[in-house]
Amino acid sequence: MIKKNGKKDIKKVVLAYSGGLDTSVIVSWLIENYGCEVICYTADVGQDEELSGLPEKAKASGASKIYIEDLKEEFASEYLYKLVASGAIYERNYLLGTSIARPIIAERMVKIAQIEGADAIAHGCTGKGNDQVRFELTVMALDPSLKVIAPWREWDITSREDALEYAAAHDIPVSSSLKSIYSRDRNLWHISHEGGILEDTWTEPAKDMFQLTVSPEDAPDEPEIIEIEFEQGKAKKLNGVAHSPVEMIRVLNKLGGKHGVGRVDMVENRLVGMKSRGVYETPGGTILVAAHKDLESICLDRDTLHYKHLLAERYAELVYNGKWFTPLRKSMDAFITESQQYVTGAVQLKLYKGSVVTIGRKSPFSLYNEEYATFGEDDVYDQSDAEGFINLFGLPLKVAAIRDMKMGLPIDLTTTIEERVELSKVPMKKEL
Amino acid sequence: MIKKNGKKDIKKVVLAYSGGLDTSVIVSWLIENYGCEVICYTADVGQDEELSGLPEKAKASGASKIYIEDLKEEFASEYLYKLVASGAIYERNYLLGTSIARPIIAERMVKIAQIEGADAIAHGCTGKGNDQVRFELTVMALDPSLKVIAPWREWDITSREDALEYAAAHDIPVSSSLKSIYSRDRNLWHISHEGGILEDTWTEPAKDMFQLTVSPEDAPDEPEIIEIEFEQGKAKKLNGVAHSPVEMIRVLNKLGGKHGVGRVDMVENRLVGMKSRGVYETPGGTILVAAHKDLESICLDRDTLHYKHLLAERYAELVYNGKWFTPLRKSMDAFITESQQYVTGAVQLKLYKGSVVTIGRKSPFSLYNEEYATFGEDDVYDQSDAEGFINLFGLPLKVAAIRDMKMGLPIDLTTTIEERVELSKVPMKKEL
Amino acid sequence: MIKKNGKKDIKKVVLAYSGGLDTSVIVSWLIENYGCEVICYTADVGQDEELSGLPEKAKASGASKIYIEDLKEEFASEYLYKLVASGAIYERNYLLGTSIARPIIAERMVKIAQIEGADAIAHGCTGKGNDQVRFELTVMALDPSLKVIAPWREWDITSREDALEYAAAHDIPVSSSLKSIYSRDRNLWHISHEGGILEDTWTEPAKDMFQLTVSPEDAPDEPEIIEIEFEQGKAKKLNGVAHSPVEMIRVLNKLGGKHGVGRVDMVENRLVGMKSRGVYETPGGTILVAAHKDLESICLDRDTLHYKHLLAERYAELVYNGKWFTPLRKSMDAFITESQQYVTGAVQLKLYKGSVVTIGRKSPFSLYNEEYATFGEDDVYDQSDAEGFINLFGLPLKVAAIRDMKMGLPIDLTTTIEERVELSKVPMKKEL
Amino acid sequence: MIKKNGKKDIKKVVLAYSGGLDTSVIVSWLIENYGCEVICYTADVGQDEELSGLPEKAKASGASKIYIEDLKEEFASEYLYKLVASGAIYERNYLLGTSIARPIIAERMVKIAQIEGADAIAHGCTGKGNDQVRFELTVMALDPSLKVIAPWREWDITSREDALEYAAAHDIPVSSSLKSIYSRDRNLWHISHEGGILEDTWTEPAKDMFQLTVSPEDAPDEPEIIEIEFEQGKAKKLNGVAHSPVEMIRVLNKLGGKHGVGRVDMVENRLVGMKSRGVYETPGGTILVAAHKDLESICLDRDTLHYKHLLAERYAELVYNGKWFTPLRKSMDAFITESQQYVTGAVQLKLYKGSVVTIGRKSPFSLYNEEYATFGEDDVYDQSDAEGFINLFGLPLKVAAIRDMKMGLPIDLTTTIEERVELSKVPMKKEL
Repeated sequence: MIKKNGKKDIKKVVLAYSGGLDTSVIVSWLIENYGCEVICYTADVGQDEELSGLPEKAKASGASKIYIEDLKEEFASEYLYKLVASGAIYERNYLLGTSIARPIIAERMVKIAQIEGADAIAHGCTGKGNDQVRFELTVMALDPSLKVIAPWREWDITSREDALEYAAAHDIPVSSSLKSIYSRDRNLWHISHEGGILEDTWTEPAKDMFQLTVSPEDAPDEPEIIEIEFEQGKAKKLNGVAHSPVEMIRVLNKLGGKHGVGRVDMVENRLVGMKSRGVYETPGGTILVAAHKDLESICLDRDTLHYKHLLAERYAELVYNGKWFTPLRKSMDAFITESQQYVTGAVQLKLYKGSVVTIGRKSPFSLYNEEYATFGEDDVYDQSDAEGFINLFGLPLKVAAIRDMKMGLPIDLTTTIEERVELSKVPMKKEL
Repeated sequence: MIKKNGKKDIKKVVLAYSGGLDTSVIVSWLIENYGCEVICYTADVGQDEELSGLPEKAKASGASKIYIEDLKEEFASEYLYKLVASGAIYERNYLLGTSIARPIIAERMVKIAQIEGADAIAHGCTGKGNDQVRFELTVMALDPSLKVIAPWREWDITSREDALEYAAAHDIPVSSSLKSIYSRDRNLWHISHEGGILEDTWTEPAKDMFQLTVSPEDAPDEPEIIEIEFEQGKAKKLNGVAHSPVEMIRVLNKLGGKHGVGRVDMVENRLVGMKSRGVYETPGGTILVAAHKDLESICLDRDTLHYKHLLAERYAELVYNGKWFTPLRKSMDAFITESQQYVTGAVQLKLYKGSVVTIGRKSPFSLYNEEYATFGEDDVYDQSDAEGFINLFGLPLKVAAIRDMKMGLPIDLTTTIEERVELSKVPMKKEL
Repeated sequence: MIKKNGKKDIKKVVLAYSGGLDTSVIVSWLIENYGCEVICYTADVGQDEELSGLPEKAKASGASKIYIEDLKEEFASEYLYKLVASGAIYERNYLLGTSIARPIIAERMVKIAQIEGADAIAHGCTGKGNDQVRFELTVMALDPSLKVIAPWREWDITSREDALEYAAAHDIPVSSSLKSIYSRDRNLWHISHEGGILEDTWTEPAKDMFQLTVSPEDAPDEPEIIEIEFEQGKAKKLNGVAHSPVEMIRVLNKLGGKHGVGRVDMVENRLVGMKSRGVYETPGGTILVAAHKDLESICLDRDTLHYKHLLAERYAELVYNGKWFTPLRKSMDAFITESQQYVTGAVQLKLYKGSVVTIGRKSPFSLYNEEYATFGEDDVYDQSDAEGFINLFGLPLKVAAIRDMKMGLPIDLTTTIEERVELSKVPMKKEL
Repeated sequence: MIKKNGKKDIKKVVLAYSGGLDTSVIVSWLIENYGCEVICYTADVGQDEELSGLPEKAKASGASKIYIEDLKEEFASEYLYKLVASGAIYERNYLLGTSIARPIIAERMVKIAQIEGADAIAHGCTGKGNDQVRFELTVMALDPSLKVIAPWREWDITSREDALEYAAAHDIPVSSSLKSIYSRDRNLWHISHEGGILEDTWTEPAKDMFQLTVSPEDAPDEPEIIEIEFEQGKAKKLNGVAHSPVEMIRVLNKLGGKHGVGRVDMVENRLVGMKSRGVYETPGGTILVAAHKDLESICLDRDTLHYKHLLAERYAELVYNGKWFTPLRKSMDAFITESQQYVTGAVQLKLYKGSVVTIGRKSPFSLYNEEYATFGEDDVYDQSDAEGFINLFGLPLKVAAIRDMKMGLPIDLTTTIEERVELSKVPMKKEL
């Protein structure tokens, strides 16, 4: 029933379509090679591209129909805000901007395939990247009866020149814009840059590559202070003004971009086994994540915070690896939602020349209490408790040391004992 | 044998001595209250304070002897460089500057107590902080036959005024400098600031509080690019010039400080159970940690890197909690040492207005290979492998989905199905 | 407000009361030393002791009132069944029978203290055990305005003889039963044994110490096969008959006890820092945990299962350490509840001579599919996918090896290369 | 250079050879299809099969040469003893008997391929199992210039009948023994059983399937007590007699087998994505693992023990997934080796009717001290320390509760407040 089928079995395909050269060629190629109807699907996840001419373009390429959907609100509220709450950052740097956008798009394509009675999903991802996995895992998780067609793993086209040639030969309209040397992905959350001069890990990214952020050197000479208010882990207000998730991210993108905030330049481990260099601009996201983290520092107790840090490492792997529609991600989100109950409050941040710095945080649920932390007496913390605490907290060390002493085992007074003995004789004693 | 003793049993005490008001008073107080001989111990861990007058001061306070030791080289090579290799950062922010300095000092005090035949260690840490734990755990781990005296948990002095009064009454020489409103700890690695206006978590630190770093706003308008070379995880050269660990950190402190790099403002969870606000300046350390992390990104494989991130969380807890001389820390260091075998190479970083950004990294052992990651064909990665990989990587999702389909279970197409059905009808443009 | 008070501030105390020698003495001692009213509280958590005479006993000891509550249903459904679902086992052995009973009792005492307007809680736990922590953490978490009185940490009574003497001197009625040499705790879930000959870790527990289970040697010579049905992780039926959680555990206790199932003999790490020997009998719990684990093996996907194992380690620490009423435990339970959605099905187990062995498991939600796992062809798994999978799964190893080969680095062909070369020459038979 | 080659490039192949039907057919098939020379390799890892006739058999099947190597000592000391020290158990049940044997065999095949100048490795693993991955990852890690040939993923033979037909047609000598209905793998450590009636997860394994262990019902009616001595985590003596690792495992296999110890029946998650039922007999291994775990309970401190449990989960995944020759496994082994420094001592165990129970453990390095754990006073543990410990250990809970009280937040007195209020009124007996 759920078998891999030959080409002849494919009658109707839903294609993730951008209107660019590659997906335009794919429309035609699918029709030519699979003899199938092609339905284009374009999601607006905030990539800020002109979508108005797409129906005509798709038609000209041979598609029978096109769906264009605005997914921005759902993307922001059901994906990005969950990501912020999770604290997940892939390999300590990457805010997962591309990874997180794939499941929502693929999930909609499955839905449309079901509505349309299509029997396959097609995408324009290459065979070396992570996105193919993210698309296909979502399809497998939501409707494994659908086949997946990944032309880049199948056809003979291996360069832009090949694709242009194919387009010319098949009367596919191609916009005249020159292909960037970079491979990019943009949405509401970020833009990524790969390829070109970035492939040499020793080379600094070129200044003109960046699109959402100015260079820190070109950012304003005056810092800008902003205040973000959260309710249960979700950003609700900026500088006192309420914003929907989409608006919040957009406004923060502008602010962050203006101050050069949110650039990341890293070498990361792709799921498919090799390392790749990626440069990311996530201006608003970087601010949100910084603010949320800081708010958690006063609203979460230590045990929860430390455990959540561990969980975030795995959550980041799940998102990066395309495992959004999985029981583990959902179970983790149940954990996270529960943990965010009291993550309500405000954070002040300073944006300046590429950096975002938290300068204040407050919450009605704050677990920080000036009184307990300071030197003097208070009603809650009795300093004499410390002795008992230390004695029991360190008891296992003491028990081991007593054993060592009784057995005449060398107790580790670091490095070479001989050196230390010498040290203890010579340079030390300044006597009186 | 290893019993807590009454005051009468204490004959000789080794005191962690700084020459400041507090520890000067403690010398006298110990003699008065315990009737014991007091030996002062002062470690030079790079705090950059004048140590030349200490013998006279200690004598004037009543001490019988003073040991002054330069621990900087050992501190840098055996503690700080291990910390860098571990990647440990407490609560995602704190580079553990104070925490890491306590075990080395306490370990030396134990050694000197053994040489001198002392029966107790004394320290000037308060009863609300972490340092008392770090000092005392080290003593418990290395020589549990030694008692610990913590005057701040014992005496009636609860303010600077009390201490001054005591000093006056006991002819203890006190330097005239005004006590800072901040509680500070400085060493080769960092300076910390607590107290004063920082106790309001909503208040930004005052500009004049900082000591090792200029404000980013006051930093040079021109970025500075530096290059650090590592061998097996250890920084060896800066801009082509070899430096000992101490020199490396010192030079980086100057560079970082000049560019406003390495400030952290956070609310952290103290081991003793409350939250506290801390502001840290770790200019050189911040650069080193950033460089090392980036080098690992090309030298470590994914499995090792991801696991090491988890291990670093626990390692940070151990260091923060004073558990340096423990089997777990040593076992973790064995792991880390093994993992650093190939962490050799160079990193270029840009320092500018408070931020440190990596702009290049290279290694003879780099696992990054331009050829594998890019679009085109190569000898190692066969794109057709991706299909098989995805099919098996996602098989568990598929198996679950097939089960769900067979059982008629709702497959999760996110949020409310009703809304989605509506959505799929209305806002989508079905054109052509 | 929430200050530690002196004795004079205590007017009314709620005491965890068992009717035994120790708590009877405590009633009197509290009145004598604190001049307060004492309200006794006894929870029935399935300890199977006679509770009928308690009101009289309590009165005779001086208590003003007694509350006796049956908490068994809540204990079973809200604590024990959650524990089973979590898979938590402390130090791989201990099913947490004592630990899990403390929060529910302490929580009720807080409630009663609030109803009664009491200002303190008292318990009879010693100063060396875990239970004092579990009781007191619950009080701290639920009503920190309540003081805690722990007579064993305060008074001079240090032996049974002391206590008997005190009882005689104060006309406290004492039952004539001889004190066991063991320290025990029993409830619906288990009985624990400590002390006596167990204190020598080299000595086998005496046969007559056990109370809930026969010795495996004395168990029936015929195995008994049982079947447990779960719904969403909760045991609902035994051998086809529905049981409430309390009844389920009781019946399984009898079955397990009859076959010598559920004994554990271990040295564990107490929270307060030392190791102690404990022997536990948890007959029904052992069966339930075994059955639940096995059912999860077919109902949970790999990612969820493996992560849940890690989470269970921390969950066990939380329960053992008395941290039930914490945000982390609640967040973890949110995770667990979500994960149990499809843990529905039946497990067959064989009880025989001390062991419980699963012999069958089935579920309508089973992710096991005979077809996929077996040798032959099927519709879901295409064996040719394996090559691609392996190539990418192992790609990081390959990349590293290629680097090593290019650099002439020794590739690790285990241990000593020299030995291996020798080995490869000599003992191998090159024939034909 | 390291490219996948076509068949024509393969000149010489090293084949993992058992002499059975499948690998005999493979010899011939390789020659026929690849036109290459085939060198057979047979490792003795304790599978207890007759190896004497293999050279003749291999020759008759067309092989040019055969290597037969005894790897038992290395397998036991460098693999199995490390596994025991790690505490790794896959999915809480499987002692990794098959997984752990693959890397050592594949590593030798790589070595021989290098000696012989072969250009490929071939194995007889199917395309649905884990073993193909373990073999091929080892090759990728040690010599990625070698190709891998996996006939079962390539040829048309899909059943025993096909294979017999092929053998007959090619004059391959086949032993007359009937093929078992089970798929099995045996070595020094264990035997595994898959397939046949086991494919129904609800069916109990047949009694006559087992080969290393008697049924518990058929085991002796008298328990047998044994004593194992370890040095630094390695078993050295049994009942006072020194044994090499191989001998130790063999003798324990007999003892365990005699008493029906070491059977596991489980559904596990294969690396390649599906679940499978496996039944294992690991008599000696089960005893060793139980003994080692118990010894660690007295020799490791809590922090190390708990962390090692987490590490063991990942270690088990690595071994199961064939990632032996990886930096992460080596780094973990560095951790483990360090942790085993004091795991020296003796354990007594009772074998009886299918179960192994520890009844005593002792060590010169034991951290258990009767004195500290018991009720009375001692020199090390001061019961009055407990109050301070609890106060600080629970401080975060208290701080949160004070916040909640100040804000009028509902403090969680479990489940439904309404029910509890009712409960507190009704079923409680307020007497006296």
